[in-house]
Amino acid sequence: MADALFRRLVAAAGPTWPAYTRHDFVLALAKGDLPAAAFRRYLVQDYLFLLHFARAWGLAVYKSDTLAEMRRAQALVAATLDVEIGLHIAYCRGWGLSEAAMAAEPEALETVAYTRFVLDRGLAGDRLDLEVALAPCIVGYAEIAAERLADPATRHDGNPYSEWLDMYAGAEYQDLARSAAAALDDGFARRGGEGRFASLAASFVTATRLEADFWTMGLDAAR
Amino acid sequence: MADALFRRLVAAAGPTWPAYTRHDFVLALAKGDLPAAAFRRYLVQDYLFLLHFARAWGLAVYKSDTLAEMRRAQALVAATLDVEIGLHIAYCRGWGLSEAAMAAEPEALETVAYTRFVLDRGLAGDRLDLEVALAPCIVGYAEIAAERLADPATRHDGNPYSEWLDMYAGAEYQDLARSAAAALDDGFARRGGEGRFASLAASFVTATRLEADFWTMGLDAAR
Amino acid sequence: MADALFRRLVAAAGPTWPAYTRHDFVLALAKGDLPAAAFRRYLVQDYLFLLHFARAWGLAVYKSDTLAEMRRAQALVAATLDVEIGLHIAYCRGWGLSEAAMAAEPEALETVAYTRFVLDRGLAGDRLDLEVALAPCIVGYAEIAAERLADPATRHDGNPYSEWLDMYAGAEYQDLARSAAAALDDGFARRGGEGRFASLAASFVTATRLEADFWTMGLDAAR
Amino acid sequence: MADALFRRLVAAAGPTWPAYTRHDFVLALAKGDLPAAAFRRYLVQDYLFLLHFARAWGLAVYKSDTLAEMRRAQALVAATLDVEIGLHIAYCRGWGLSEAAMAAEPEALETVAYTRFVLDRGLAGDRLDLEVALAPCIVGYAEIAAERLADPATRHDGNPYSEWLDMYAGAEYQDLARSAAAALDDGFARRGGEGRFASLAASFVTATRLEADFWTMGLDAAR
Repeated sequence: MADALFRRLVAAAGPTWPAYTRHDFVLALAKGDLPAAAFRRYLVQDYLFLLHFARAWGLAVYKSDTLAEMRRAQALVAATLDVEIGLHIAYCRGWGLSEAAMAAEPEALETVAYTRFVLDRGLAGDRLDLEVALAPCIVGYAEIAAERLADPATRHDGNPYSEWLDMYAGAEYQDLARSAAAALDDGFARRGGEGRFASLAASFVTATRLEADFWTMGLDAAR
Repeated sequence: MADALFRRLVAAAGPTWPAYTRHDFVLALAKGDLPAAAFRRYLVQDYLFLLHFARAWGLAVYKSDTLAEMRRAQALVAATLDVEIGLHIAYCRGWGLSEAAMAAEPEALETVAYTRFVLDRGLAGDRLDLEVALAPCIVGYAEIAAERLADPATRHDGNPYSEWLDMYAGAEYQDLARSAAAALDDGFARRGGEGRFASLAASFVTATRLEADFWTMGLDAAR
Repeated sequence: MADALFRRLVAAAGPTWPAYTRHDFVLALAKGDLPAAAFRRYLVQDYLFLLHFARAWGLAVYKSDTLAEMRRAQALVAATLDVEIGLHIAYCRGWGLSEAAMAAEPEALETVAYTRFVLDRGLAGDRLDLEVALAPCIVGYAEIAAERLADPATRHDGNPYSEWLDMYAGAEYQDLARSAAAALDDGFARRGGEGRFASLAASFVTATRLEADFWTMGLDAAR
Repeated sequence: MADALFRRLVAAAGPTWPAYTRHDFVLALAKGDLPAAAFRRYLVQDYLFLLHFARAWGLAVYKSDTLAEMRRAQALVAATLDVEIGLHIAYCRGWGLSEAAMAAEPEALETVAYTRFVLDRGLAGDRLDLEVALAPCIVGYAEIAAERLADPATRHDGNPYSEWLDMYAGAEYQDLARSAAAALDDGFARRGGEGRFASLAASFVTATRLEADFWTMGLDAAR
């Protein structure tokens, strides 16, 4: 199984994991009754998040031991800067958000907290610490979308958020998430060991909590 | 004047600065009617903050160009680990908080956001970036305490928080803050330049905003 | 002029600059009488160097303040990992060196010294520090090749090293070097200032000295 | 045994380890016939080395996960900046070297290579990577001095270098080295695992090679 470490980390996170993956924001999005203001707040902050996501993978290039590791990190920087940011900007335009408006928005507390936590784990620790702190985001989004699509309560017709769900549930993103989970196993084999699990689990649970706060930030905008 | 850069940064921060230094938490503390629950929440998170504060000055040792810079950073690591944390623990005991209880508490979102923002500025930028991001804390606390002590509305007798105010308004802390402000001027002379001011000011205003959020976190605990 | 800072740094480096750009290794290469063993040693270590060069630009992605800065750094990581390393391997094959053999070779003292010096400048300082430490390599190679091509003493016919000279004197590499020099001016405008020049010049002269040592390492292999 | 990891690393380094610990520089020093010029060159570069050694332990403060780890790193920064550098300066004065003269000397290639290699390992990896790269220096010097003192060929009377040997063979330094070795075992238990050994061993052998080059640099000065 290529996601053994990820599964152990999820198990160790206990109720913090579903508090993130089945957060009210996510459930409302799947049912199509998430307030548009909440989603727009999320989209703007997700744009700001992406800039730091690219920085994190740039850092991973620096922290690579092998050419293969470097190439995987570089592919993710390229995907973020050359593809994802463009797609995100195009998608946000459909929600009435211009790139200039998003770039001018201050980062929310929740955006600062999650992005800088990840970067600090990556700088204080090694590349495995960095990838573990990124996993709730990368692998978690794939699980969130797949789980919601499989849920009979999810509304497909006329759901303004179905494009979002379909994107993360789609083959391309699910593949990316699978290879991120596989990279965790690879990293744990080469740089880990049982003694290290407790510290990785502590980092994973904090990152998961901060991701749940990111959803809450969206909901707060609609209150 | 040995705080020229600091004064310019404060001016550039506009209303964000007094929103932090004259935050409701601070005003209530000075009047003595801050709920104890708010103060306890603050104390616990301040303990967790101190650990990252020591890390930030350890990073500054690494980022030093001269022996004098190294020694100043090292003195602050030493002061934090050998003196301040001990004093903080002793003070918190008086508020019914044991070190073990504080160490077991999860970091609040606001604590993660401010501490990791500072560390990221320090790692992505140079030592001046690091010290500018720390200035709202180090120099700001001195200003907050001095301003409140000079305010006739501040209650001295029977104010459960007067020890806190006296400590930060005291000569020792005011000296430390003055030398931190002077170090900013020194850093700006050796590593700065006008072109760099906009970026330093942007970092300072974000750090100030995150410090204000830290006070809000305290107040939220009493709601 | 788009290379004002670079020209000032070269001037400040004094005789250290021509000791690098007109090193015996370079002059012998241009005349075609460099011993093949010296060139092979250089090629192997240059392969190992390229891995750290890619890491340096990955670090620059992390240290970027703007999307434009990130994209320039990312383009250099991509060029290195997706194009240059491949070209270098193909070129080295013509000199009887396989990738496996090069990857198995230990890094020379000179390779460790220059690459890690650059990375440390980049981590201890900011992105401008990083780019200044890289400039003797990126911009210097363009100057070296252009100067030798313009020299009547350079042998073109039957020079086994002419392909190397032509590559670095070619329009594509000269453009890359010009944009690297322009980026220094841009960085100095946004993050520099006169006070900072002395420290940048000190870093530049050390990096130049270490690059000259890199040529010497090649010559030593033929002794 | 509190130096299990260190012993395994030494074993994995094979002949590179004695090539460092029984280097001609060391043997000549023990016999008292090392040229003074070689020793002076070493002393000057060791002064420059100490500045980066302090930076490395400052970095370790930043990279600490626990208060205990932070305190150990901070104690080493303090010992270096507050005690060792002073002792070194006093000792060097006895050899006719002033602090100003040493500070004005450019770093040798060998000094740059070893110090920046260590810092890069610490930044690219985690604290265990940093401590493993420092171990040939910290623990190695204790072994070198102890081994030479136990060797009948070592000259004690009238050996101008006996003070140096006695210092590193003395109880205080041997204790420091023992606790550094114990910290490696502790780090390997908490952050290591067998999969990681190969990479730690590769780093250790490179660091050892660079330390041997440091001795060679001394000898070269007397040629």
